[in-house]
This record gives sequence, structure tokens and C-alpha cells, in this order.
Amino acid sequence: MTDRLRDRGERALLEAIRRLIPRGRGVRLGPGDDAAVLAPVRSPLLLTTDAMVERVHFRSRWLSPRDLGRRAFEVSASDVAAMGGRVVAAVLALTAPPTLPVASLRAMMAGVRDGACAAGGALVGGNLASGSDLSLTLTVLGTAASRPVTRAGARAGDQLFVTGTLGGAGLGLRSLMGARSISGAATAVGRWRRPRARLRAGAALARHGVAVAMIDLSDGLLIDADRLCAASGVAARIDADRLPLARPLRDLAPARARELALAGGEDYELLFAVRPARVATLYAARAALGCQVTRVGEVVAGRGVTVLAGGRVIAAGAAFGYEHFRRSPRRRRRTETA
Amino acid sequence: MTDRLRDRGERALLEAIRRLIPRGRGVRLGPGDDAAVLAPVRSPLLLTTDAMVERVHFRSRWLSPRDLGRRAFEVSASDVAAMGGRVVAAVLALTAPPTLPVASLRAMMAGVRDGACAAGGALVGGNLASGSDLSLTLTVLGTAASRPVTRAGARAGDQLFVTGTLGGAGLGLRSLMGARSISGAATAVGRWRRPRARLRAGAALARHGVAVAMIDLSDGLLIDADRLCAASGVAARIDADRLPLARPLRDLAPARARELALAGGEDYELLFAVRPARVATLYAARAALGCQVTRVGEVVAGRGVTVLAGGRVIAAGAAFGYEHFRRSPRRRRRTETA
Repeated sequence: MTDRLRDRGERALLEAIRRLIPRGRGVRLGPGDDAAVLAPVRSPLLLTTDAMVERVHFRSRWLSPRDLGRRAFEVSASDVAAMGGRVVAAVLALTAPPTLPVASLRAMMAGVRDGACAAGGALVGGNLASGSDLSLTLTVLGTAASRPVTRAGARAGDQLFVTGTLGGAGLGLRSLMGARSISGAATAVGRWRRPRARLRAGAALARHGVAVAMIDLSDGLLIDADRLCAASGVAARIDADRLPLARPLRDLAPARARELALAGGEDYELLFAVRPARVATLYAARAALGCQVTRVGEVVAGRGVTVLAGGRVIAAGAAFGYEHFRRSPRRRRRTETA
Repeated sequence: MTDRLRDRGERALLEAIRRLIPRGRGVRLGPGDDAAVLAPVRSPLLLTTDAMVERVHFRSRWLSPRDLGRRAFEVSASDVAAMGGRVVAAVLALTAPPTLPVASLRAMMAGVRDGACAAGGALVGGNLASGSDLSLTLTVLGTAASRPVTRAGARAGDQLFVTGTLGGAGLGLRSLMGARSISGAATAVGRWRRPRARLRAGAALARHGVAVAMIDLSDGLLIDADRLCAASGVAARIDADRLPLARPLRDLAPARARELALAGGEDYELLFAVRPARVATLYAARAALGCQVTRVGEVVAGRGVTVLAGGRVIAAGAAFGYEHFRRSPRRRRRTETA
């Protein structure tokens, strides 16, 4: 018979989980007391929290419990990457139905731990509560370079770059949501299931003083570029012909591939602005980033994001993708012909 | 018509909430970027997370949204108090059904902010997701005295003390859960609705080197004393005749009042161990604690918790109260006659 949460006491469960979690560097006291204790840190601190709720952000059948735990960590750690920071510690608040197999819970915790360890940090604590929806709330504590990279440092004339490739996770998610098979879906689904926070790239971009404004791509390039622009008080021009398409997108119709790269979301790549005089430094530092970087556009005066393809404006205005709580997602993008 | 979450975009909501949150000392960047940025801290860091889920931990009709937000903060901050620490910053991950009025959301955030400000910290970020259950996950970052007070420092011969009074919140909760009226219920309900983390007392006990082991009373004196004993590898003898009963308990039958003080839970007072030679220092430092302290027992060799009344053992063994996921809470307390 499957061992389920309802058959075990919370304390027995937490005891079992504690054994799974090794101490990390800088961890003076791990899980099991009232709070975790960490060694003092000389740099500015970063703090960010993110929740993943079943039926809102994922379905349990879409990914293994271990991938789910790891994914929750990476999504939260991606915010630290976007500030150019380093992960120190993570805590997980898990809400789960009493029918959840204990093995699934252990696998989720192992997934979070895998992510924290790979990032050079540690899972130092958690909370377990029963609830009708499975949800994982991951809070990550990080440290920043002496001057963290915010969204607000871009100015007209800067060039815009992205790490990695775009649209793969969006295609994977759509493939999981729909019944029909999509060419290249397996790779794309893997991309959605197993995002990796660009911690190495983010830290290198901050260290080399290359990125003057940065954001991670959770909701898609259009929305997140709009956020970076709004924070910086500028506008952006994106060149759709330059977008680094994820491999599975190359089999799709060009317009469809472009749409996924612009608005697919959940790629967790970094979008960043670079002063023209620093672009050479960026290219020189490329080996330290651990991934490709591609120039996708430029910062201009004004407000909002304009997308060009073949020299023509194909979209302009503030772009809205999936936003929680909306009855129907309103898309304010409008198609224009120059 | 009531303005509800489903009528507003997440971004518009977060914008509205951001305005509500003032910057605190040490906050270099508040909500709105990828992560909050805090000034470096010289002391060891504390990190703790707690979730409050509707229908598991509370019902919305039991308390106002503002009290709910404040309560979520205090419950999490209580873990920082139990380490003798100070609150630096808090982040809130809120999951809410789309029908939640926007005014309720704002009031919850205001409640969290009130708590963080009163504790000398700041609410620096959050996350908002839709979900069928309302839940508030509060993560608190704190700093510890040079040597944080854990659960593990007690040894045989130490005296056990509690702050404040016991059983009030437990009576209040039972009054809210039941239909029948209970004498003194209004005061007790207030005690449950508005707990206050014993931050001042916890920090003073750590600063004066008085508490050698400490825990906050979330699940009741019996369970939490058992946890402190297990961590320290000792046993405890509790004198039921010395328990500082909350005022509303004084109208109840003595056995009922004693049960609530021992096992009612959710008082968020501190239980701590003091070496006999330091008891005079504790009494001398009482003014700095901001609350009464009462000796409730002593630490002895062995395992588990024994409760005495009128010189007779009335309960012994490991005590289990409400534990999540159990189909039926098993109580292993056994009544003995010496």
C-alpha cells in the first residue's frame, strides 16, 4: 500500500525530510529548530519568494515530483540571477493534500535540494501544511555584487541582449496543455520541465559591470522587456528577425515560432541592457557566462515595446500575457503596418 | 460593485500594493524588482517560513483581513523571537481565489506591514497567485545575537520558564470553532486573533545570556516542551499548579483550564531553560522583557515530559497535539497515578 501523508504525523515527516538535507557552507544550523542560522554575509542581501500552485502553474502529471521541486527552486533562483546575485539559502513552504504519497514529498524536497546545491547554496528549512491544492512556495536568500543589477538602469542607446534561446518552454507548455502532438515537443517539454536559473551568467554580467539593467524572462520577452523599460523610463525596439529561437521552434511556421519566442514565457533566460561602449567587454567575457548571448534590440526614448520584422513594425504598445486573476487575458498588442 | 481580484491584472494589483509599503531601514530596494535588496548585516542570519491555509489554520470569518495579515507575520516572527533574534525583513506569498475583494487583499498586506514595522523590519516583497484556498506564506529574515538560542542547550537541573500567560488562544480557537458560547470567550478570541511574537523578550533573554534553550509555543506547552527536550536530550517536569493561566481560563473548571494551558496551542509565548545560577539574573532583567515570566518546571535526566499537580503525576510521555495529515490525531499522553 502506498505510504501517504495522511498516514504519517507532520513531525515524523519532517524528521524524515531533515535527514535528506545536507548542511551547506555557511549554514550554522539547518532545519529542525525554530529558524535556520546562517553565517554573516558581507555583501548586500537579496530576498525573493515565488509560489507554484497546482492547476494554476502546473499539473502534477506534467512532471515528476523531483522535477517539480527542482523547478520551484530554479524559478525563484532566477530572480536572484536577474540581480546578478549568488544563492545562499532556500526555504520551502509546501502545502499538499493528505493523499500525496510520502515518496512524492521526499522527491520534491530532493529536487529543491538538488537545485540549491547546484547553485552553491542549501535548503535550510521548510514548512509543511495540508491543503486541497499542492503548492510549493520557495523563498531564496542571496547575496548581490556590491551594486546589484536592477531593472532601472537602462537608457536610450543601450543594446538589449538575451541569454540562451527563447520559446522552447512556451512550446513545451502548450504541448502539455493540448492533446495534439507538436513536432519537437519532447525537447520543448523538457525545456519547460527543467528550467535552469542563469546564475552563472547573471553573476558574470554583474561582475564585469556589463549589464546596467536586467530582468529574467518569466512571462515572455514582450512583457518582461516592457517591465524593464517601465522601470528605466525608456522604450525598446525588438528585432524579431534576430530572436534566438529554441531548436524545437525551427520546425514551426515562422510567425508561430516568433510568437512563442516573444510571448511564450517561462524560459527563465535573462534580458539585459549594455552601454554601446561595453559591448566589446560583453563579447570578451562570453566564456564566463556559460551560455550564448544574442543582441535582440535596442533601448530608445519613449515608452513601451515595439517589435520589428523585415524592417516593418509588427507589434507595438504595452504587451500583456498571462496574468493571474484576469477573467480573460486582455492582449493590448496591436498589429501595425509601417 | 465590489472590486475583486479577477477584475484586476496581477501587475495592477502589485503596483497598488507597492505604494502601501514604506521602505524600512536597511532596505536598499523594496518590492517591484526581481528581488529585494537589503544592506549587509554583521550578525548571523535567521531564516524561517510559515504558511497559514484557510480551512486548515483559520476560517476567513474568524478574523478581519488586517488581523489575518498581521497574524501571519507574528506567527512567522515568533520563530525569530525563539532564537533571540531581531526581524530584518519579510516577504509574503499570497494565494487567493479570484473572488477575493481587492480591499481584503490590501488589508492583509497592511496587516503584514504593521507587524513588520512594529518589529523594526519591513515587508520587502511578495508574490500573488490564484488558487482555490486563501493562503499566506510568510518568510522572515532576521539577525541573531552572536550566539542564537537554539532548542538544544538545556541540561538536567535547569529551570523552565514561560513568558506571558497560557491557554487563552486555545480557548479562543475552540470558541470560534464551536457554536456554544464560552464564558470569557471574547477576550480569548482576541488572544487567538492577535498573537504578538515575543521579540523583545526573546532578544533580551539572548542578550543577557539567560536562556540556554528556547522554543516558541505554537502547538502547546506539552508538545513544544517535548521538542525542546528531544533537541537537548533531556526530560522535563512541568508543575501544572504553577501554570500562568490566561485570564479567561480562570472561570473554567480547573482541569479544563489546565488542559488548555498545557495543550491549547497557538499562544506564541516562549518556553526557555535557565541555569540555576542565572535565575537571579533573569529576575533582575525582567523589566527588559516587556512581559511576565513564570517558572513552570525543571529539566531532568531522561526523555519526555511529565506533568505534576498537587504533587502527583497527572500526565507523562511524549505528547502529541494537532498534527497535519493525520487521519485522527493520536494522543499518546497517558494518565497515571503515582
